[in-house]
Amino acid sequence: MPGAELSSDVWINEYVAPDVIHQHGIQRVLASARTPWQQMYIVESDTEGKALVLDGKWQSCTADEFLYHEPLVHPACLQHGQPKQVLVLGGGEGATVREALRWKSVERVVMVDIDGQVVEACKEHLPEMHQSAFEDPRTELVIGDALAYLDDSEGQWDVIISDLSDPIDEGPSFPLFTKDYFEKCRRALRDGGVFVVQAGPVAPTSMSLHVRLVNTVKAVFPHVANFCSWIPGYAQPWGFAIGCDAPIDTRPNPEAVDALLAKKTTGGFRMFDGRTLLGLYQPPKYLRDAIARETRIFTLKDPAKFFGSGVASHT
Amino acid sequence: MPGAELSSDVWINEYVAPDVIHQHGIQRVLASARTPWQQMYIVESDTEGKALVLDGKWQSCTADEFLYHEPLVHPACLQHGQPKQVLVLGGGEGATVREALRWKSVERVVMVDIDGQVVEACKEHLPEMHQSAFEDPRTELVIGDALAYLDDSEGQWDVIISDLSDPIDEGPSFPLFTKDYFEKCRRALRDGGVFVVQAGPVAPTSMSLHVRLVNTVKAVFPHVANFCSWIPGYAQPWGFAIGCDAPIDTRPNPEAVDALLAKKTTGGFRMFDGRTLLGLYQPPKYLRDAIARETRIFTLKDPAKFFGSGVASHT
Amino acid sequence: MPGAELSSDVWINEYVAPDVIHQHGIQRVLASARTPWQQMYIVESDTEGKALVLDGKWQSCTADEFLYHEPLVHPACLQHGQPKQVLVLGGGEGATVREALRWKSVERVVMVDIDGQVVEACKEHLPEMHQSAFEDPRTELVIGDALAYLDDSEGQWDVIISDLSDPIDEGPSFPLFTKDYFEKCRRALRDGGVFVVQAGPVAPTSMSLHVRLVNTVKAVFPHVANFCSWIPGYAQPWGFAIGCDAPIDTRPNPEAVDALLAKKTTGGFRMFDGRTLLGLYQPPKYLRDAIARETRIFTLKDPAKFFGSGVASHT
Amino acid sequence: MPGAELSSDVWINEYVAPDVIHQHGIQRVLASARTPWQQMYIVESDTEGKALVLDGKWQSCTADEFLYHEPLVHPACLQHGQPKQVLVLGGGEGATVREALRWKSVERVVMVDIDGQVVEACKEHLPEMHQSAFEDPRTELVIGDALAYLDDSEGQWDVIISDLSDPIDEGPSFPLFTKDYFEKCRRALRDGGVFVVQAGPVAPTSMSLHVRLVNTVKAVFPHVANFCSWIPGYAQPWGFAIGCDAPIDTRPNPEAVDALLAKKTTGGFRMFDGRTLLGLYQPPKYLRDAIARETRIFTLKDPAKFFGSGVASHT
Repeated sequence: MPGAELSSDVWINEYVAPDVIHQHGIQRVLASARTPWQQMYIVESDTEGKALVLDGKWQSCTADEFLYHEPLVHPACLQHGQPKQVLVLGGGEGATVREALRWKSVERVVMVDIDGQVVEACKEHLPEMHQSAFEDPRTELVIGDALAYLDDSEGQWDVIISDLSDPIDEGPSFPLFTKDYFEKCRRALRDGGVFVVQAGPVAPTSMSLHVRLVNTVKAVFPHVANFCSWIPGYAQPWGFAIGCDAPIDTRPNPEAVDALLAKKTTGGFRMFDGRTLLGLYQPPKYLRDAIARETRIFTLKDPAKFFGSGVASHT
Repeated sequence: MPGAELSSDVWINEYVAPDVIHQHGIQRVLASARTPWQQMYIVESDTEGKALVLDGKWQSCTADEFLYHEPLVHPACLQHGQPKQVLVLGGGEGATVREALRWKSVERVVMVDIDGQVVEACKEHLPEMHQSAFEDPRTELVIGDALAYLDDSEGQWDVIISDLSDPIDEGPSFPLFTKDYFEKCRRALRDGGVFVVQAGPVAPTSMSLHVRLVNTVKAVFPHVANFCSWIPGYAQPWGFAIGCDAPIDTRPNPEAVDALLAKKTTGGFRMFDGRTLLGLYQPPKYLRDAIARETRIFTLKDPAKFFGSGVASHT
Repeated sequence: MPGAELSSDVWINEYVAPDVIHQHGIQRVLASARTPWQQMYIVESDTEGKALVLDGKWQSCTADEFLYHEPLVHPACLQHGQPKQVLVLGGGEGATVREALRWKSVERVVMVDIDGQVVEACKEHLPEMHQSAFEDPRTELVIGDALAYLDDSEGQWDVIISDLSDPIDEGPSFPLFTKDYFEKCRRALRDGGVFVVQAGPVAPTSMSLHVRLVNTVKAVFPHVANFCSWIPGYAQPWGFAIGCDAPIDTRPNPEAVDALLAKKTTGGFRMFDGRTLLGLYQPPKYLRDAIARETRIFTLKDPAKFFGSGVASHT
Repeated sequence: MPGAELSSDVWINEYVAPDVIHQHGIQRVLASARTPWQQMYIVESDTEGKALVLDGKWQSCTADEFLYHEPLVHPACLQHGQPKQVLVLGGGEGATVREALRWKSVERVVMVDIDGQVVEACKEHLPEMHQSAFEDPRTELVIGDALAYLDDSEGQWDVIISDLSDPIDEGPSFPLFTKDYFEKCRRALRDGGVFVVQAGPVAPTSMSLHVRLVNTVKAVFPHVANFCSWIPGYAQPWGFAIGCDAPIDTRPNPEAVDALLAKKTTGGFRMFDGRTLLGLYQPPKYLRDAIARETRIFTLKDPAKFFGSGVASHT
């Protein structure tokens, strides 16, 4: 009489809610360190592949990271049309840079991550993620503070990608989910520049951060679109938001998009194309309704609080 | 120094893969029984609300069941346009019937579920789910075998909704995910009839059942569309497939759909509308690619095997 | 390649420490209720048999309850020698009464438990535990407050057995692990009376409650002996303490004890006999050392705090 | 309303039974390797301290390893009285050697462990365990096969300590829990030599291995005593067995033992002394009864099977 057969002795618990835990069984610990900024693990799982875990939060895994990184990067680049200067804030594993480099127009991608130790560990242990993006001559890696860097680079960027870990209470990303920060991002854009931010879970029971965050982006940019992608490693669907000065066509023609992508990128997409983009731009009614009802925004004085901080962050 | 604060002593483990477990903490057990067919729990959770659990598999919970039941029912009904006779195979909680009854044209919904004990428990403990759908004069409840019922009702149905639990090894739904069964369903449809089936998870690591199931529906119906909805309670995005004799417009005009829904239904949708439907019909590239590559189908001789059977089913 | 094969979908988590969880997989929920006093489950497990769970704490299970109830009752009765009037404070499952009734001298066992709903559920679902002890003409069941009952029965008891659930923050047993309470117990004893209390875990990492509790009993009774029994269902070894006015022979002759037991009891012991008693009275050095060092006691003003309250108790 | 507050993101699951899991939350991974013999982790936990984990089985942790290593070593050494040549089979962490070196008579302790990589990692990361025992001039470390070593050292040892990991299906210790192996051990003893073996869990639900193992030792040695110690890190009480040619005094005088220990050892015991020894030699009735009833033994042809192999061992 067979039962549930498990293959792991070591498990990473993701505390999704006080009564929801998502457990990732792992077969190997590839790296483990307490950096000045966070607790880091790079682990390997039979089902989910290699994964980066920061402060107990599953950041990405090779089995489904494309469902995060492709929608993070390409709708924004496509909205711009001809991105040359791209800024990635955060982006530890290098997969966000990898995606940005698919755009032929890109001349320079600067990635600013606060935690050099994490980036080094990813370089060594997660080649499937960065795929040598760090070696590309167009890539520039800056280990430092995103806010300071933004202040020093006003009016420089075609696309700014905010790829930061969730705003858990005491984690490093705390102030970076606020109107104040989004305003800095806007000032750092060139004319026609586009801003995109990973914007939290969108499950009905966990969407409040996303909803308020989209509202916060709307307080800064004249045109905003949010969209979602399911990312099984997070055990929840995930949201993103684009902000820019130009209108966003949320009902694009798939074939026209495909033609543009064929011309302007080197290809290699796994989840993204014209039809996917058309789908992304139609978030379900419950989420649109919630955003329409939302009136609050996040500011430095009233910032986001995110349940389920990996407990590592507190010790 | 706070850590992860949990609110439950009792947890339901969903074995998603040998190294992925999704844990639902519960605060109350409302009902618990081993029926002739399966192990049943109806439980209550602070975050996810009330839930039905069969053979250890989370069937639905009040917090997000609309993300399952609305896409299960409405694209098929809309594809038909004027459904009068609707057959629901399975459907224990009554939420599928509830959604079908929103269509003004509906004259009769027959729900055939094998497990009367589960249906009775849902009637008593899950009023949020059925919302008195069982009392609607158009509803007819049959406790019995779906296959036998299909054989006896050829050519009768405008819409057939296959809302069965997953095809776990020894569960009751085993033969109902095969070409043989889909052929029975087709024969039971009237002219212009539409068939829809819940069609398994669509995460990159777990989509093989869905992919092959869509291919199986294609072997039976001339026109097939698959679509997906994230359902956080399952910790995975979920797939559905429609099969019918008429072409399916997978790029519908949202405003036209909304006008039709306003006219033909009593409303009350939480996730479904024209824009959501446009989004549903654009599954992401990786899934479309996998379906395009698939050559196998499921038959009674070579049926589906689904990991993560609740272990209860084996004892 | 087999892995760990599990047999349960539903698990009860016992939070032993912030980083130690003991999980009991269950196959059936026999009863479930939120009483006025606590959250109660009666469950069944393949390995551990039937179990009573209160406020998320595993109280006892049929597989190993004798390792708790026999040492709780018999060293105290033997110390007395001829117990006639026995008072059980707490004792929900009836197994403590069952053991007391093995003593032929016993004329009356009064069990005072605050939670009648729990007692009724145990009567119905746990016959293996009480073994009809509630029907014995010598047994008297009082549903009420232990403290009030003690106040009304001064000088009446040969043996008082404090069989209360752990002193978790907001549970009902909170004030019953204090010097004030032990003094009440002493006043309720007849001459030659013996008091025994279940006295918490004795693992090196969790023994502080036991150590201080033994010291508290010492502040009330001239002669005190503590002893321990491993109880696998608790995932920890467990302590007990006897207090009385007469000296306690902690190096009894096993054969003499066996002869006494044969004469004075009806037998049926599973873990207890003369040799076991000799072993019980030799707790390991680390625990004796810790007790020797302890100077604090528990009072109503400075009571016990116990980690790992079932979270149910707080809601 | 507080709940259960956890302090870990990473957990090690010990599969005690198909429906019992003991979870150790850890704060740091100090070392991680797949050696030729087994999967090894050295981890750190707030509550349990540093721990060695092999093939998913918790071997020992600094919080309670003395409850394992002291009873493993000292009853056997005391039974001998004047141990000079001591052989430790297994013993990775070095704590068994550490204890043996407390005996002033000891001239040489040879430790034979098959897994040099584990021993090296313990040397580096677990100084609390070995306490420089490996640097003691009396210590000799042999990386190699215990069986081969035994064959080459007949008649050489005063005390042989079998400190091997549990006989899980495909682990390296499989054949070392058999009559054949115990006979080799006996041949390797000098006159008056004493053999001791860690002998598995002794919970009522898990004692079958211990019971049969004690019976197996009895088939080889004329005098055998078994004893038990609770070890919270194992979530179960644990058994040991001594075999020798001379009678064993299982009712020793505690004060006489203390005097001997004071004279013959360098002291430093945490759980062991005369009174503890007297207690150890009185295992509870249920276990003595089970051993008295047992008729089977373990042989190479019919060896032990142990549930709860860490799943790591199979991959």
